[in-house]
Amino acid sequence: MSDIADILTREVPAINRYLEGAANTLNPLVQPVVRHVLLAGGKRLRPLLTILVARALGYAGDNVHPLACSLEFLHSATLLHDDIVDGAKLRRGRASAHVLFGATHTILAGDVLLALANRLVAEYDDPELTRILSEALLQTATGEIQEIAHLRDVDLPLDTYFSIITGKTAYLIQASCHCGAVLAGASETLCQAAQDLGHAIGIAFQLVDDALDYTSPATVSGKPTGGDLKEGKVTLPLILYLATLPFEERRRLAEDFRQDQLSAEDIEYLRGNIVAGGHAEKTRERAAEYLAKAQAALALFPPSPEAELISDVLAPMLAREK
Amino acid sequence: MSDIADILTREVPAINRYLEGAANTLNPLVQPVVRHVLLAGGKRLRPLLTILVARALGYAGDNVHPLACSLEFLHSATLLHDDIVDGAKLRRGRASAHVLFGATHTILAGDVLLALANRLVAEYDDPELTRILSEALLQTATGEIQEIAHLRDVDLPLDTYFSIITGKTAYLIQASCHCGAVLAGASETLCQAAQDLGHAIGIAFQLVDDALDYTSPATVSGKPTGGDLKEGKVTLPLILYLATLPFEERRRLAEDFRQDQLSAEDIEYLRGNIVAGGHAEKTRERAAEYLAKAQAALALFPPSPEAELISDVLAPMLAREK
Repeated sequence: MSDIADILTREVPAINRYLEGAANTLNPLVQPVVRHVLLAGGKRLRPLLTILVARALGYAGDNVHPLACSLEFLHSATLLHDDIVDGAKLRRGRASAHVLFGATHTILAGDVLLALANRLVAEYDDPELTRILSEALLQTATGEIQEIAHLRDVDLPLDTYFSIITGKTAYLIQASCHCGAVLAGASETLCQAAQDLGHAIGIAFQLVDDALDYTSPATVSGKPTGGDLKEGKVTLPLILYLATLPFEERRRLAEDFRQDQLSAEDIEYLRGNIVAGGHAEKTRERAAEYLAKAQAALALFPPSPEAELISDVLAPMLAREK
Repeated sequence: MSDIADILTREVPAINRYLEGAANTLNPLVQPVVRHVLLAGGKRLRPLLTILVARALGYAGDNVHPLACSLEFLHSATLLHDDIVDGAKLRRGRASAHVLFGATHTILAGDVLLALANRLVAEYDDPELTRILSEALLQTATGEIQEIAHLRDVDLPLDTYFSIITGKTAYLIQASCHCGAVLAGASETLCQAAQDLGHAIGIAFQLVDDALDYTSPATVSGKPTGGDLKEGKVTLPLILYLATLPFEERRRLAEDFRQDQLSAEDIEYLRGNIVAGGHAEKTRERAAEYLAKAQAALALFPPSPEAELISDVLAPMLAREK
């Protein structure tokens, strides 16, 4: 266990130092926006996974940070663009970039971060890594678009919901693990295990997020409670709840939701019912299933302190309150 | 000369076919936005330059289109994001994507095109190409930001103006030529000549655009005449005009322009004065100097029908009216 504590104490500050240094190389005009999104904290889940998977699969070199951080830059770029897309006023409890800096600087700073991510990866002289990164951006943007296309779609099939969260969240986390495996020169089987690990973590992560949206007070999560309902996002707690309603009640609610006819009180009442009905909890249970899949994928890795660390952070991921 | 006509007749439809085919592979939800920007016409200058430079420098393979078209996709992505940034209502004479499809779909479709561009280039297994593409996106976005930072800045130094147009326009055209040279496996000298060629074409292209903004009727250009003045963009015709004014007159006009105090009539009067003073024409003369630099760079290429074609299209580029 002291190995594990050592790894975290070493890796997270090293990631932050690298992010800071790379941000310093950008044009001074974009730095305020970039710093705002990068230094807002965040768990550094994606670069950490790249590093841990690379080490767990035998990478012994000292050039993992540009690759790992390119995934954080890509993630930050999508956050900047999403802020505009969602019209979100808050991000991690602070004002969104577009509120502070305007849509123009936010869009362009996002583009600069996308370019930076690609440039960092290009330095590895391994087109497979560039392919993974491009695919991750493609899938993330497509997942976002799919989500918007299904706003207020109360008939959203479960598999479409999973396809949306795979695109908008899981794919990039999968790519983070995959990049680590490719950097380590892992076998095809282990590359696939790394992808399965990342995919399962990503889905579990988003399911917990979707549950927290119903239960976590804004003071803890930095986001308004019930934000998804207000924005018309159909996520698993709502899907599960709707399935329990008698036909006529479901029809009426569905109609009101679709036409954005619910008052703030209606929404708060609905949110209360969904939580009381255990549907946020059931969403966490689905997340637990995916974390079990993640553990199964991880079991294919050879034993190492890093694999143990990944295993150890999966449980707290489920229990998190923000 | 018939060689040359043959090349154009062959290459442009082939580019359009490839663009169409690649767009078809995208998620159906983004296709309307992508088609809107891609099929709006455009000269296909960037992919054409990649192809012509590659051929001129000895590339004999049949795999030039993904690379060439990745530059058109990157260009289209920046157009989509710029439409939002500029708040432009018109693009090539048609409604802008964000007016038709909303900011959300426009931002995300731009991201999808950026990802597609990177993925196409990754297939070449040549990290140098990925590096060129990433750098082009970085420079383009940075140039845009710099332009916005200097809106209404009537004291804009000439070298900052050139740095802005290098970033927002010339760099991507330079990258198009550079990619062609790298694909052809050209020597370092010829790679540099290709970059010099693209840089000079790009600057000339933007100078002509900046001149046309003052002179071309909306019915011809698809953009409102004097649009730059209205938007507060300080370009060469205005810079040259301001330098001719007596101190006090310059100070008053500068102050009004800076504070956006000019009425539509004031702006039209100012535009008339700038054109009557020959400053749009002088801007075209600067463009002619850059086209001469382009010819000088091209003179380093070995003789070929493609090099001849590039040379032949430079003069009409200066004379264009839209």
